Amino acid sequence: MNYKVPLKDMSFVANEVLDMPGHYQTFTRGKAVDQDTLEAIYSEAAKFCENELEPLNKIGDEVGCKFDGGVVTTPPGFKEAYTSFVENGWPSLCGPAEYGGQDMPESVGLVFMEMMIAANHSWSMYPGLSLGAVKTIKTHASKELKDRFMPPMIAGNWTGTMCLTEPHCGSDLGLLKTYAEETDEDGVYKITGSKIFISSGEHDFADNIVHIVLARLPDAPVGIKGISLFLVPKFNVNDDGSVGDRNAVACGSIEEKMGIHGNSTCVMNFDGAKGYLISEPHKGMRAMFTFINESRLGVAMHGQAHSEVSFQKSLAYARDRLQFRAHPRKLEDKPADPIIVHPDVRRMLLTQKALSEGGRMLNMFCGKQVDITLSPDFSDDEKEVAESMLAVLTPIAKGFLSETSLETTNYGIQVLGGHGFIKEWGMEQEVRDARISQLYEGTTGIQGLDLLGRKILKSRGKVMKPLMSQVQAFIKENRRNKYAKQLKGYVGTWESLTRSIGFSAMRNLDEVNGAAVDYLMFAGYVTLAYFWAEAAVASEAAIKNGGAQEEGFYKAKLATAEFYYQRIMPRVLAHEAAIKNGVDSMMELDEAQFAYL
Amino acid sequence: MNYKVPLKDMSFVANEVLDMPGHYQTFTRGKAVDQDTLEAIYSEAAKFCENELEPLNKIGDEVGCKFDGGVVTTPPGFKEAYTSFVENGWPSLCGPAEYGGQDMPESVGLVFMEMMIAANHSWSMYPGLSLGAVKTIKTHASKELKDRFMPPMIAGNWTGTMCLTEPHCGSDLGLLKTYAEETDEDGVYKITGSKIFISSGEHDFADNIVHIVLARLPDAPVGIKGISLFLVPKFNVNDDGSVGDRNAVACGSIEEKMGIHGNSTCVMNFDGAKGYLISEPHKGMRAMFTFINESRLGVAMHGQAHSEVSFQKSLAYARDRLQFRAHPRKLEDKPADPIIVHPDVRRMLLTQKALSEGGRMLNMFCGKQVDITLSPDFSDDEKEVAESMLAVLTPIAKGFLSETSLETTNYGIQVLGGHGFIKEWGMEQEVRDARISQLYEGTTGIQGLDLLGRKILKSRGKVMKPLMSQVQAFIKENRRNKYAKQLKGYVGTWESLTRSIGFSAMRNLDEVNGAAVDYLMFAGYVTLAYFWAEAAVASEAAIKNGGAQEEGFYKAKLATAEFYYQRIMPRVLAHEAAIKNGVDSMMELDEAQFAYL
Repeated sequence: MNYKVPLKDMSFVANEVLDMPGHYQTFTRGKAVDQDTLEAIYSEAAKFCENELEPLNKIGDEVGCKFDGGVVTTPPGFKEAYTSFVENGWPSLCGPAEYGGQDMPESVGLVFMEMMIAANHSWSMYPGLSLGAVKTIKTHASKELKDRFMPPMIAGNWTGTMCLTEPHCGSDLGLLKTYAEETDEDGVYKITGSKIFISSGEHDFADNIVHIVLARLPDAPVGIKGISLFLVPKFNVNDDGSVGDRNAVACGSIEEKMGIHGNSTCVMNFDGAKGYLISEPHKGMRAMFTFINESRLGVAMHGQAHSEVSFQKSLAYARDRLQFRAHPRKLEDKPADPIIVHPDVRRMLLTQKALSEGGRMLNMFCGKQVDITLSPDFSDDEKEVAESMLAVLTPIAKGFLSETSLETTNYGIQVLGGHGFIKEWGMEQEVRDARISQLYEGTTGIQGLDLLGRKILKSRGKVMKPLMSQVQAFIKENRRNKYAKQLKGYVGTWESLTRSIGFSAMRNLDEVNGAAVDYLMFAGYVTLAYFWAEAAVASEAAIKNGGAQEEGFYKAKLATAEFYYQRIMPRVLAHEAAIKNGVDSMMELDEAQFAYL
Repeated sequence: MNYKVPLKDMSFVANEVLDMPGHYQTFTRGKAVDQDTLEAIYSEAAKFCENELEPLNKIGDEVGCKFDGGVVTTPPGFKEAYTSFVENGWPSLCGPAEYGGQDMPESVGLVFMEMMIAANHSWSMYPGLSLGAVKTIKTHASKELKDRFMPPMIAGNWTGTMCLTEPHCGSDLGLLKTYAEETDEDGVYKITGSKIFISSGEHDFADNIVHIVLARLPDAPVGIKGISLFLVPKFNVNDDGSVGDRNAVACGSIEEKMGIHGNSTCVMNFDGAKGYLISEPHKGMRAMFTFINESRLGVAMHGQAHSEVSFQKSLAYARDRLQFRAHPRKLEDKPADPIIVHPDVRRMLLTQKALSEGGRMLNMFCGKQVDITLSPDFSDDEKEVAESMLAVLTPIAKGFLSETSLETTNYGIQVLGGHGFIKEWGMEQEVRDARISQLYEGTTGIQGLDLLGRKILKSRGKVMKPLMSQVQAFIKENRRNKYAKQLKGYVGTWESLTRSIGFSAMRNLDEVNGAAVDYLMFAGYVTLAYFWAEAAVASEAAIKNGGAQEEGFYKAKLATAEFYYQRIMPRVLAHEAAIKNGVDSMMELDEAQFAYL
């Protein structure tokens, strides 16, 4: 069974849960999109993903990228798919018109991104990283750099990367050593150092690769406040925009990894490479956060997309595989019934479904907020609300949806039993490919700290207000709905739990770090409970209005919401109780006593 | 960092928690073992595992088994390690003396098995499956078959396999189609059919391979009550015991898998192969359960062993990797502190430690019970107690320790951040190798059903009594101990939860299947809470007696018990609440409505 783009569910979320058509009426870029065009785009995008990307997913895993003498060869078919992608204008979908883009709202691009990731995670990372690089340039670079680099990047003829990590520094970027030396030319530097884990750092797709590199200027302060951002092209660019001579940057090797074999994870060596300063000196980290937040939303989609694919594939198996008999029998004429009749198999499938579809609502809601933050048509107040929403929801979506993809993809194996462990079924690839999502762009621990420490406690809870207001308004408006009632309790617990950690942290700052991941998971479950309540209300309305062509679709939403509240939400009890038991039991053990070997 | 056998902890569990020396005084085989011999065995076994097996673990994963024209070649070094294993007499450690064995208690062999699995899971499965086959023959075959097959198998010159699964039947063995035809010779049959997922089914280690095969006799009743057990050698055996001509059984292919690449997972084709009936006609499943229970305990050790290795390796990294700074600083002269200072990293390490060491106590306790069930020196009553203990604890150990190994091995990756995803660190291999443990010898769902349905509810709770009596006696004896107090509450909840599912099941049998996995996990957490309370009491005693050479070791036990109760045990709240919310929300959704694609 192959992955199918869930267009019907995407349309339900857009039209019936999030009122995206109404949203698009509120800003210029949105108004330019009519509903028919949008549907045509999604339908064509789905065809591209199903017909061109999905068939390459397995071979990408099996063959992987090859490295020889600085050259990376991507798996068979990858380059051709990228050529088709460029020829059909997909890279420029949401790019600004002044640089050749099609000016679609970001939220549209994010829906397309979910499809690409689900069809072929490894492949999707080549255009994915490129989008991040383009946005960093667009937001922070000088007009001259934009004019020179953005048109070919937006057209997809050139791609981009983000070069952050070094061997001795991952999360703690303040330790980085790559340095920039001045040249005679203003704003032009020589960059020297070694970067690791550079996704799409070298490949055979494009005429040029534009690296966005974190490095230290001469006399930079130590630590995180002494980092600047540079643009370093693989090939220097002539004044007429054509590709010139090779710059002093090269791929030293590629990593052998657990998964995403089709994406090249490169060691990139900069040996006095020509680089252009982006943004202000020493303000590189601040500029980099444009990319980091954007990419964390991308990783949230990685998690959700793997949940979707695992769900679809294990569902197909569960309908097909005959094993044991139900009471009463389902298929009297067969020796056994399809395993989907068994409650424990349904438990796994419903968990996958609830987390995939719930995650989709969360991600698309974030897409809506991104539209607002990027459009000049909204007021500062409106933008601040959207930014607060994203400040809270980005680490939740990234951390929670990637962590739960570990569960959903493993259920993908589990539903198939021993067959799930065999490569040919493809389920174990989902587990291996999804596993990176809990690591890159900040581990789950980092997301938890970002949410609880950097965002919520640092703002004394202020950053949570817009989200809480929206949820409270929903509860008030739907006060007779059974989920709204339960949600009220969960949200109350969330707020009191936050206060209680705040108090504990005054005595012992370790309480924040010790609570972070449990807090993140707690917040994730409650956030999805909100969206499932929204979905239930929308589905009840559709059934009541009777216009529902496929009543079964809405009934399935109601049944899934019920399952989510009955069987998934109890997990918050464990996270809450663990947090309340505090950090002391984690800190007592002396480092030397952890093991006696 | 390489895996080290945790001899000190094994000795703590044996001597201070489980009183194995006292246990060995209660039966003939045990009395024959003096403490010095035992320590010498463990120390030599550890050397074998650390020096000969562990160095082959990575190459086994990278190179895997090769298949060509029916011949399987194991990874480089595997065969040589097996030769050394045989030459040093390890295969016969617990075998009966009358067939050349060394007559050690089973519990000794199980400790050795933990070491072998931890050092090299794939390799350990060759002797592991062989032990299962030997025990099946020993328990159920005729004297003639035993005399002919057991000596070379116990010596390790021949190995054995278990052939259960067929393409269309995994858990539901009643569907199997492999059949036996009568021959002129009494007790001799021609076996025809195809078996899949046969671990160690073909390899280059041994002179002969003895397959234990499930098949149907002519006129067998349909379903599970028509299955018989046969012994089918790869090479026929001459009357003088020498290896004769090739039998009509051959390996058709080997599987490409997610992990355990060093073990050959074979399709075995039987084409009228000569086979000998073991046990009574149509009573094959009952006989097979000797093997199944034994092997489930083996899989429990797979889960626990991977937790141990992941713990050791991520601990080494966490002590070494410098990233971010603690308050107060740990290493003032370095730019950052080792990540073990951070609470969230400690949370992961302590979870691994608590589950590995807790799992070891559970598994070694099961080993003690196995000794009792197998020795003629115990009364029927004593045996019945031990059998009840194993009936309850085997599915718990198998299901819970394999499921939690998914968490612990993934923490092994997570502690290393992005490096954990890179193959060279070896952490992702632990995840892939451990993943099979939740599948083979019955998935987690099957374990949950076995525990809750087949064992507990079917006996109306009677089977739980011996375990509950022991736990209650512990609680009474240690009533001032803080963990004993909490344990009392957890055990009470366990009992009331069992009753409540029993009542629900009278109305709707699906409640059992729907609750099974949550119930299993609940039971697993409470069972380990019991053992951690035992460990805490033993450690307090050691510290109080002052004789403790390394007080830090016991302090670490107390700190880990505290962590387990404070931060792990809250999880039971989620499982309890999910079960109480019942099965209805799982059954509501019509099969056709699961997805609209």
